Amino acid sequence: MISGRTLLARADALAAITETPPALTRSYLTPEHKRASELVLGWMREAGMAAELDAVGNCAGRYEGTEPGLPCLMLGSHLDTVRDAGKYDGILGVLSAIACVDALKRAGERLPFAIEVIGFGDEEGVRFAGTLIGSRALAGSFDPALLELRDAAGVTLAEAYRKFGLDPARIGDVARKPSDLLAYVELHIEQGPRLEAEGLPAGVVTAIAGFTRLQVEITGTAGHAGTVPMAGRRDALAAAAECILAVERRGGEPGLVATVGKIEAAPGAINVIPGAARFSVDMRSADDALREAAIAALTAELRAITERRGVALDIRSTQSSRAALCAPWLMDQLGAAVKAEGIKEFRLMSGAGHDGMAMIRVADIGMLFVRCTRGISHNPAEAITAEDAEIGARSLLRFIRAFRPEGRTR
Amino acid sequence: MISGRTLLARADALAAITETPPALTRSYLTPEHKRASELVLGWMREAGMAAELDAVGNCAGRYEGTEPGLPCLMLGSHLDTVRDAGKYDGILGVLSAIACVDALKRAGERLPFAIEVIGFGDEEGVRFAGTLIGSRALAGSFDPALLELRDAAGVTLAEAYRKFGLDPARIGDVARKPSDLLAYVELHIEQGPRLEAEGLPAGVVTAIAGFTRLQVEITGTAGHAGTVPMAGRRDALAAAAECILAVERRGGEPGLVATVGKIEAAPGAINVIPGAARFSVDMRSADDALREAAIAALTAELRAITERRGVALDIRSTQSSRAALCAPWLMDQLGAAVKAEGIKEFRLMSGAGHDGMAMIRVADIGMLFVRCTRGISHNPAEAITAEDAEIGARSLLRFIRAFRPEGRTR
Repeated sequence: MISGRTLLARADALAAITETPPALTRSYLTPEHKRASELVLGWMREAGMAAELDAVGNCAGRYEGTEPGLPCLMLGSHLDTVRDAGKYDGILGVLSAIACVDALKRAGERLPFAIEVIGFGDEEGVRFAGTLIGSRALAGSFDPALLELRDAAGVTLAEAYRKFGLDPARIGDVARKPSDLLAYVELHIEQGPRLEAEGLPAGVVTAIAGFTRLQVEITGTAGHAGTVPMAGRRDALAAAAECILAVERRGGEPGLVATVGKIEAAPGAINVIPGAARFSVDMRSADDALREAAIAALTAELRAITERRGVALDIRSTQSSRAALCAPWLMDQLGAAVKAEGIKEFRLMSGAGHDGMAMIRVADIGMLFVRCTRGISHNPAEAITAEDAEIGARSLLRFIRAFRPEGRTR
Repeated sequence: MISGRTLLARADALAAITETPPALTRSYLTPEHKRASELVLGWMREAGMAAELDAVGNCAGRYEGTEPGLPCLMLGSHLDTVRDAGKYDGILGVLSAIACVDALKRAGERLPFAIEVIGFGDEEGVRFAGTLIGSRALAGSFDPALLELRDAAGVTLAEAYRKFGLDPARIGDVARKPSDLLAYVELHIEQGPRLEAEGLPAGVVTAIAGFTRLQVEITGTAGHAGTVPMAGRRDALAAAAECILAVERRGGEPGLVATVGKIEAAPGAINVIPGAARFSVDMRSADDALREAAIAALTAELRAITERRGVALDIRSTQSSRAALCAPWLMDQLGAAVKAEGIKEFRLMSGAGHDGMAMIRVADIGMLFVRCTRGISHNPAEAITAEDAEIGARSLLRFIRAFRPEGRTR
C-alpha cells in the first residue's frame, strides 16, 4: 500500500524544483517554494485532505476523523532546504505523512481524531536569519520583529510575504491552541550514523538536543617567529589549541557532544607568532543541566589554560536552546509501531534541530528517525534506500492506526 | 664624534621616502628606492667615500685604506623595508657604518685595509618573491631565473631593472671574490627582546638561525556537529590542535624555536565538524643538525597523532635554510669593542634572517645587535634610543679601528 519507490520518486520530483540547478537549494518564500508547495498540496488533495497554503507559507492538509472538527494528530516536517542540499532532509517526513493519509483514504478509514499534515515553509533559516519560522508561527511563538529581517538582497521578510501573496498581518492567525493538537509527530532522516551502525532502518527519538554556542577570543602578543624566545611568548594560537582539546575532552563525556568548527589566527603569517585567535564552540546535550554544567566547567578550564599562559580570554555565548524532550507516551507508541514492523526498538537522541523544538510549546512531540547512508546530510550525497523509506512510512502508519492520545505529560 | 641624534634624524629622513605615506613602505627598484639611494649616496660621499649605485641597485661606497685597492672590510645592511615598517630595521646598520667612516675621515685616519659600506637594495623580498637579492648578487649567488619573477602588478624583475636604469645582463659584474673581502660585518637592531631583558644596549651575534618551514595538511571527515558521536569523529581541527601543541613543545627544547603562525579549518562552519585543517610550521635553530633532528622527531610525532586519530596527514617542507655561523674571530673582536665601551659582552643568536646569510658564501661574517624597544620590529612601533644608537655605532667604530683580519676559519 505504501511504496518506498513512490516516496523516493516524489523526493526526486521536489528536488527538481531548485534555485540553483542542478544543485538543490529551495529557500523560504521563493518562486521555487511556491512551485514545490503546489506539487505537495496536489498530493495532499489526492490523499483525501483539504489542503491550502497557510498564512505563513506552510502547506497545511487536513484529513477529518470520524466526525468533522476533531482535535488532530499533527504530522509534518519541512519543505525548505539548505544550500546544495540532499533530497530527504525534511521532505521525507512530509511525503511519508501524506503516504500514510493516502493509505487510510484508500482503505476508507476514518479515525477517532483528525490528521493534519504540515509541510513547513522554513525550518533551515537559509534565506532569513531566523529558523523554524513555519513551526514557530503554528506554535504561536512567531516574533513580529522577525518581519524586519532582510535576505542577502536586502528584501525584508515582510516584503517577501507580500511578494509571495501572503499578508504578514495575518501570520498570527496560524497559531494553534494546545486543545487542537493531540500530539506533533515527525518522521525525519537521522542525519547521523547511529542507526546504520546498529543495522536498523528506523529508531525512536528521545529528545532534540539543546545547545550552547560560544565565541571564544584569545588575545596574546604577536611577535617575530625567530626572535622571541619560547619562554617569553604569549602565543594566542597555541593557547587556542590547548582550549580546543579541552572542548573535545568535555564533549567526550557521556551525554554530550562538542565541536570547534571555526578557527582564525591573526595576523596569520607563517613567520609571526599569532597575537589573536578566535574559535567557535558548539556543545549539545539532551540534558540541559548536564550541558549547562559542562559549559561552566569548560569555561573554568579555558580560564585556567589562558591564565597559565598569560593570554586574555573573552567568551561570549552567542546562541543557546533548551533540549526538547519527546513525550514518553509517544516514544512508547512509536516504539510499539516499529517493533510491529519486526524491527528492534532503538532509542536515540537527535543532535540536529527540528520543528519539534518549536511545536513542543503547544503539543507533546514524538519523532521517528529513518536510517541514512553514512550519516551524511546537508549534502547532495544524502541517501536513503527505498526499503528504509517504506519501513519508516509503514511504521508511521502503524503508529497512526494504533494512536491513543494521552494527556500532556510534560 | 658619532651622534646618536644624527643617526635617528637620518633614519627619519629616510622614513619620509615611502610608497605609502604616512606609513613606511619602500620596496626594491621603486622611485622611492631611487630617492632613498640618492640621499644615502650623498651621505657616503660626505663621509669621504667614492659611492655609486651598483648594477643590482645597492648603494656601494668605498673608503680607501693606506693605499688604494686594498682588500676591504665590508660593512652594510639593507635600505628596503617591509610594508608598514619601522624606521631602523636595516637602515640603522647602513647609517652607523657611514657614521663610522665619517668619523675616520674627520680624524684623517686611513687604515691598512679599505672599508666598503653597502646599502642593499633588497633584503626583505616584499616586491618580488626573492629575498636577499642585493647581497646574493654581491656573493655571486644571484640566480638569473629570478629575473622572471613578477611583482603584484605583473612587472618582471628584469623589466623593473631596466625601468630603474639598470641592465639586468650586468648583474653578474657585482659578484665579489673572497680575496677582495676581509670580512662582512653588519650592525642591526635585535628585533627581539633579549638585550632589553639583559639590560644591555648591544650584543654580539653568534649565528643567524637556519629554518625549516612546513605546510601541514590534515584530512578527516566533515560531519554534523550534533549528530556524529564523539567516538566516531575524525575531526581534522582537533587533530591539528594536538599537533600544534606538539610543535610548541618541540620548539621549547634548548636551541630551538618553533611557531604555528597560520591555520585554516574547512568547511569552517560553527555546526560542522572540520573535515580538513591546514597549518604552517616555522622552526629555527643556530644548529642545523639539531633543527633537522627536531623536524624528523616532530614529523614522527605528528604521524603518530594523526594515525591514532584516524585522519590523513600530508607534510610538505616549503622552505629551508642552513644556519649562518658568525666567525669566532669576528665575535671576539666585536666583543672586545663592546667591552671597551664599558658594556658587558653578551652573545645571542639571530632568529631573524639577514644579508650575512648570503654574504657568508664569500666572507666570514659578524654581526652586532642594538637593543630595540620591547623587541618590536616589522611594525611602525619599532623604536630605539639615541643613546643605544650611539653606543652601537661607537662600538662598531672601535671594532673597525682595532680590526685585525684573520684567515677564514669556516
